[in-house]
Amino acid sequence: MVKVIVNGAKGRMGSEAVKAINNDDALQLVAECDFGDDLAALIKNSGAQVVVDLTAASAGFSNTQIILNAGACPVIGTSGFQVEQVEQLQALATEKQLGGLIAPNFSIGAVLMMKFSAEAAKYLPDAEVIEAHSPQKEESPSGTGIRTAELIAAARTKAPIECSDKELIEGARGAELHGVKLHSIRLPGVVAQQTVFFGGLSETLKIEHNSQHRESFMPGICLACKEVVKRNELVYGLEHLMD
Amino acid sequence: MVKVIVNGAKGRMGSEAVKAINNDDALQLVAECDFGDDLAALIKNSGAQVVVDLTAASAGFSNTQIILNAGACPVIGTSGFQVEQVEQLQALATEKQLGGLIAPNFSIGAVLMMKFSAEAAKYLPDAEVIEAHSPQKEESPSGTGIRTAELIAAARTKAPIECSDKELIEGARGAELHGVKLHSIRLPGVVAQQTVFFGGLSETLKIEHNSQHRESFMPGICLACKEVVKRNELVYGLEHLMD
Amino acid sequence: MVKVIVNGAKGRMGSEAVKAINNDDALQLVAECDFGDDLAALIKNSGAQVVVDLTAASAGFSNTQIILNAGACPVIGTSGFQVEQVEQLQALATEKQLGGLIAPNFSIGAVLMMKFSAEAAKYLPDAEVIEAHSPQKEESPSGTGIRTAELIAAARTKAPIECSDKELIEGARGAELHGVKLHSIRLPGVVAQQTVFFGGLSETLKIEHNSQHRESFMPGICLACKEVVKRNELVYGLEHLMD
Amino acid sequence: MVKVIVNGAKGRMGSEAVKAINNDDALQLVAECDFGDDLAALIKNSGAQVVVDLTAASAGFSNTQIILNAGACPVIGTSGFQVEQVEQLQALATEKQLGGLIAPNFSIGAVLMMKFSAEAAKYLPDAEVIEAHSPQKEESPSGTGIRTAELIAAARTKAPIECSDKELIEGARGAELHGVKLHSIRLPGVVAQQTVFFGGLSETLKIEHNSQHRESFMPGICLACKEVVKRNELVYGLEHLMD
Repeated sequence: MVKVIVNGAKGRMGSEAVKAINNDDALQLVAECDFGDDLAALIKNSGAQVVVDLTAASAGFSNTQIILNAGACPVIGTSGFQVEQVEQLQALATEKQLGGLIAPNFSIGAVLMMKFSAEAAKYLPDAEVIEAHSPQKEESPSGTGIRTAELIAAARTKAPIECSDKELIEGARGAELHGVKLHSIRLPGVVAQQTVFFGGLSETLKIEHNSQHRESFMPGICLACKEVVKRNELVYGLEHLMD
Repeated sequence: MVKVIVNGAKGRMGSEAVKAINNDDALQLVAECDFGDDLAALIKNSGAQVVVDLTAASAGFSNTQIILNAGACPVIGTSGFQVEQVEQLQALATEKQLGGLIAPNFSIGAVLMMKFSAEAAKYLPDAEVIEAHSPQKEESPSGTGIRTAELIAAARTKAPIECSDKELIEGARGAELHGVKLHSIRLPGVVAQQTVFFGGLSETLKIEHNSQHRESFMPGICLACKEVVKRNELVYGLEHLMD
Repeated sequence: MVKVIVNGAKGRMGSEAVKAINNDDALQLVAECDFGDDLAALIKNSGAQVVVDLTAASAGFSNTQIILNAGACPVIGTSGFQVEQVEQLQALATEKQLGGLIAPNFSIGAVLMMKFSAEAAKYLPDAEVIEAHSPQKEESPSGTGIRTAELIAAARTKAPIECSDKELIEGARGAELHGVKLHSIRLPGVVAQQTVFFGGLSETLKIEHNSQHRESFMPGICLACKEVVKRNELVYGLEHLMD
Repeated sequence: MVKVIVNGAKGRMGSEAVKAINNDDALQLVAECDFGDDLAALIKNSGAQVVVDLTAASAGFSNTQIILNAGACPVIGTSGFQVEQVEQLQALATEKQLGGLIAPNFSIGAVLMMKFSAEAAKYLPDAEVIEAHSPQKEESPSGTGIRTAELIAAARTKAPIECSDKELIEGARGAELHGVKLHSIRLPGVVAQQTVFFGGLSETLKIEHNSQHRESFMPGICLACKEVVKRNELVYGLEHLMD
C-alpha cells in the first residue's frame, strides 16, 4: 500500500480526499495535515511516500518544495502556478529522482475530454467550445474551457474554415482564443458541463463532460497517488499519468 | 381535395413544394406559377383554393394582396414583412373572410421548439439559446434564435437569476436580447440546429431541434394548405394553425 | 399567505419540503406532522388550508380522505394509486368543493417534458424514449418513461413508420409499450435523465430532462400549494395546475 | 502527387471518391475502373500507386490480391472480410513490402469516436452505446455499434458496476455484447448517429458522432491514399493510419 498524507485535510476538497483514500485498498492514509502543523516533520515521522496538497493556491509552490525536500512525491491540486515555478519544481523533482504531479483538474472525465479534443483537432480543425456552469461562477470562460481551446489551437494541423462572423447582436459568436470560439452558459441546475463540438464534411463529433460534485475529483487523486511513486519526474496535467 | 397553386414553382423551395403537394392525398396541385405568369388569372382559371408563395421576399406583400383579392387563401413563405404590412393583410383577409398564413419557418419541429420554449419560460425563466449553422451563414444570431429569445422574454413571469458576467475574453457570455443570452456556433457538417437550455432548482430542461434539409419544411406547408381553407383570418406563424 | 402542514416532515422528501415552504414568501408552515400525530386534529387546530403528504405509498389513500374530511386541500406525493381510488377521492373533493392534487412527479421540468412530448406526438408520431438512471435503480423502464410512452401513444394521430426491427442481438430495439420504444440506461454519475427523441422529414426534435437531486421537486410542491386553494376539484398530475 | 485509381468508379460511393480525389491537391486520379475493365492492366499502364476499391463485398478479397500483385497499395472499403482472409492479405502485403488498408468505416469522426471510446473505457468501465439510424436500416444493432462495444469490452481494466436489470417490459435494458449494453433507435430524420455514454463517480462523459451523408467518408479515403504509400504493411481499420 502507498502511504499518503493529505495536506488541507479539513477543507471541502481535503475532507473528501481523506474519505476517498480511506476507501481505496491500495492506499493508506498515514496522516492528516492542516494549518499550523509541520508538514516536513509529519512526512518524516509517518514515512509518507505521497502528499496530496489541497490547500490554498498561494501555498502551492512552497508546499511542493517542502514535500520534495522531505523525500515524498507531491500531488498538487492548486492552480495558478507560473510557468517558471513549474519548471523550477520539475528541476527539483528530477534532482531528487521523485515523481510528482501538479494538476489544474483531477476529474478523469474532464482530462479525457481535453485529451480527446486535442487529438480530434488534428483531423477536424473546425471546433468550438461550449461550457456551462451555475450563475454563481464569477468569470467566463471557465479555466477548463480556456485550457481546451489552447490544446485545440496547438493541435490543429490546418486552418479552420473562415466564417463571416457578422454579428447582428454583439457577442453572438462568443469569445475567441487562438482562433477557437468559446461560449459560456450560466444557468441554475448546472454544476459543470462542457461540450467540445467538432465539424467535418457532412459529419460532426461532440465530446461532452458533465460533473456534478467535487467527489468527481477523487478517482483522479487516487490514481495519481498510485502513479507518482512509480515515476522520477514531476508532470503538469493528470493526462501525463494516463497513457 | 384542396386545390393548390405553387408560386415560384421553379425555385429550390418551390420545386420541393410541387413534389410534396403531389405526394399528399389530400392536396391537388392545379397549377405551377412562375416569373412572367399572371397569378390572378391562374387562380381564377384553375379554381385554386390555396396559393403557396415561395418567391422572393420583395414580392411577398403584393402577392398576398393579389391572392386574397382573387379569392384564394395565401400560404406565404417569405420573411421580412413589416408589422404594418401584416396588419394590413390581416384586415384584407378578414374583409374577404379568407384564411391565410405568413410563416417565417415552416419546419414543424422548429415551430414546436419555439412554442415549447415560450411555455417552459413561464415556469423556468432561466434560459439560454444556442444555435448552430454552417460557416456559410452570413449573420449571427439566426432569425429563429432571435424569434425564440423574443418569445422567451415575453413569456417569463419572473426575472432570471443575476450572473456576474465578468468576461475574461470579450463575447464569452454571448449576445443578449431582452435579457436572454444567445450563442451562435458556425461549423461545417451542421445544417441548422438549435438548443434551448433551461435551468431550474437542481434540474435542467433542453429542447433541441435539428434540420438537415429544406425538405423539412414540406410537412408544414402541406399542413398549412389543409388548415387555411377552414379559417377566415390570416395568421402570422405556423404555430397558430397547430393547436 | 397559504397555511400549510407537511405530513411526513422528518422523511428525506418531507424535510426538504419543510425547508422549501419556509423559504417561500407566499406560504406559511403552520405544523409538521409525523408518525403518531393526529393529522385531523392538527389541521383543525392550525387552520391549515393545504396538507402536503410525503409519507409512504400505503398511507396515501386514507391520508387524502382525512385531509379532505378535515376541510383542507391535499397535495399528495405518493405513487401507486389505483384508478378507482383516484376517482373516489375526486368525488369526495368535488363534494367538499376543495381543490387537490395527486402527483407521481413534482419536478416542473419533468412535467413539462411529458406535456411537450404529448403535444409533439400529435405532429411527429415517430418517437422513442431513452431514460438514464443510476445502477441502483431496481426496475426498467422508469415510471416517468412508462408514463411518457403512454402519453405519446394516446396523443398520436397517425401511425409511426414501420421498422424491420430484426435484432442481431436480442433487446437491441428496446422495450415496447403501445407502439412506443423505450430504452433504459443504467450508469454511475447519472441521477435521473430522460430524452424523448422525435423524428420527422429531414428533421429531429429532442426534449431532454435532467434531475440531479430531490430538491428539484420543491418548486412543484410550492406551486401546487398555491394553486390547489384556488380550485374546487382534485386533479391527477401536476400538469393540470400548469396551464 | 500520389497516383490513384478508383475501382467501382460509377457506384454511389465510387463517384463521390472520384470527385474527392480530383479536389485533393496531393492526389492525382490516373484512371477510373469499372465492371469489365482489367484492373491489373490499368494499374500497370497508369503507374498507379494506390487503388481505392469501392466495389461489392464479394469481390473485395480477390481485388486486394490483384492490387498487391500488381504492385499498388490497396485502400479497400468493402466489409465482410473473414479474419483468415485479412491475415492472408497482410502476409502478401508484407511479402511485397506494400502498405494497405481494409476499413469498415472511412468516416474520420466515427473512427475517432471508436478510438476515444476504447481509451475512455480503460478509466471509466461503465459504458453503454446508443446508436440511431433511419427506419430503413434492416438490422440492429449497427455494425459500428457492435464494433464499439467490442473495443470497450477489450479495453476495460476493471468490471463495470452490477445492475439489477429487472425488466418490467422485455428489452428495456437493450442488447448485451461482452458485458456492454447497446440500444438501437430507428427514426426518420436520422441518417447515422452514435452516442457512447460513460459514467463515473459524480461525472459522465459522452462521445457523440453524427453522419449525414456518404460524403463524410471522403476525407478518410483521401487520408488513406496519402498514408498507405508511406507504409509497408496492410492494416485493418483507419485508426491505424491516424496516430
